[in-house]
Amino acid sequence: MTTQQLHEQILQKKSFLCVGLDPDLAKIPPHLLETEDPIFEFNKAIIDATHDLTVGYKPNTAFFEAYGIKGWMSLQKTINYINENYPDIFTIADAKRGDIGNTSSMYAKAFFEDLNFDSVTVAPYMGKDSVEPFLAFENKHTIMLALTSNEGAFDFQTLNTNGTELYKQVLETSKTWKNSDNLMYVVGATKAEYFADIRKIVPDSFLLVPGIGAQGGSLSEVCKYGMNDKIGLLVNSARAIIYASKGTDFAEKAREEALSVQKEMAEIIRLKFQV
Amino acid sequence: MTTQQLHEQILQKKSFLCVGLDPDLAKIPPHLLETEDPIFEFNKAIIDATHDLTVGYKPNTAFFEAYGIKGWMSLQKTINYINENYPDIFTIADAKRGDIGNTSSMYAKAFFEDLNFDSVTVAPYMGKDSVEPFLAFENKHTIMLALTSNEGAFDFQTLNTNGTELYKQVLETSKTWKNSDNLMYVVGATKAEYFADIRKIVPDSFLLVPGIGAQGGSLSEVCKYGMNDKIGLLVNSARAIIYASKGTDFAEKAREEALSVQKEMAEIIRLKFQV
Repeated sequence: MTTQQLHEQILQKKSFLCVGLDPDLAKIPPHLLETEDPIFEFNKAIIDATHDLTVGYKPNTAFFEAYGIKGWMSLQKTINYINENYPDIFTIADAKRGDIGNTSSMYAKAFFEDLNFDSVTVAPYMGKDSVEPFLAFENKHTIMLALTSNEGAFDFQTLNTNGTELYKQVLETSKTWKNSDNLMYVVGATKAEYFADIRKIVPDSFLLVPGIGAQGGSLSEVCKYGMNDKIGLLVNSARAIIYASKGTDFAEKAREEALSVQKEMAEIIRLKFQV
Repeated sequence: MTTQQLHEQILQKKSFLCVGLDPDLAKIPPHLLETEDPIFEFNKAIIDATHDLTVGYKPNTAFFEAYGIKGWMSLQKTINYINENYPDIFTIADAKRGDIGNTSSMYAKAFFEDLNFDSVTVAPYMGKDSVEPFLAFENKHTIMLALTSNEGAFDFQTLNTNGTELYKQVLETSKTWKNSDNLMYVVGATKAEYFADIRKIVPDSFLLVPGIGAQGGSLSEVCKYGMNDKIGLLVNSARAIIYASKGTDFAEKAREEALSVQKEMAEIIRLKFQV
């Protein structure tokens, strides 16, 4: 998928919502546990109930790997289900990978080829040759961590390096890499005021924004500082939507939550772009 | 496994070699491709041929994930094979994981519980709450990236932060985390002179050292600067050992390569400890 196609989908759905799929057997509705593949059944129901309100799904690989081979099978079924039934949806493997060149090539192959995700999240610590193998894939997107939404973000990401914070250095440096057009960045919603500075460095890139909802970030604040003239945001919400109810009505309640966020997004788009 | 048990195994085998298992279908001996699970058959043969010369195996998860479910099954069979047949061996899931707290907990569950590895590699970029969930597991070890062996290491890891390089700050900060005794660190062999400074910060920790062999690092230099009075090193070699031959003699040739490294290690231990 191209960023242009993603932009068009955003305008059409009046939504830049991405739903995080973090399926935890301890949290999903108990009645699903009797099915053969509770994780897939859970994801499928959430996807069917929200696909017209969201432009992206972001399965978090940890929540599948924790269940071993069975979990990896659920991940494959989930991505296949999205690709077959809702091919316009932008898919993100939230995997936070990154390793020396030949290893990163194998991760890229895993997520872009074997599983056929549109994008994958990567960590920047190992630098250029750990990220460029991902960037080599045409019409695939590499979403690099810049400033994350957790407390630990302040351990290293905001350290002063040569007069600027490390995460800004990461953004600057990454722009010099080969095929850097295929980069997007993770920027946490818990620090909305940081978006203004970030937009000076990467005005045109899509930013994947976790931290809305359960983690406490404000949508309007993020949009105020982070939106560009092509929207340029994918706002992720996981727990607040997928765990809206533990009952048999979980998918319906997830839809209600997603609808509430989508309506807020539609209003923000209407006000900003007068459409 | 405790670090004490690992130390005892090192003295007994006169080896601190770790063999990296990076099974690439394009590189393993062609005759194995006719078997039902070429990746597992390859690993099994390498393990059987080298287990008395090495104290650790380090499967690189990328090389399994690239083959999807089949690859994940090969990974499970490989770790099970080691744990059942050579329970003294220290096992490392080279996964470079790290995410917000509840996600890191799921990764820890995946590698420490589901797959039953002794250790896993993690990336530090997201800070304390992305690493502490791994550290909570007793007698399991979390091997955090400090200074890696690739070119991109110089993009961010060596940036000056508050008067010191980022990787030194990472080492310093990590010592304050809960259960930091369960930390080990990745330090690339391509920069042997850096080990002296690193040992001032983490004198007692085990260091996992990639970059010997195919990546060009020198074993004697690394030992000169990096060894402590409990050895404190796990030196990894992957390609130089596992791809020593593409013929039916690949396991035999792998053993020859491993034996050559082990002999060099035995001599270093003898000279340093007069044993």
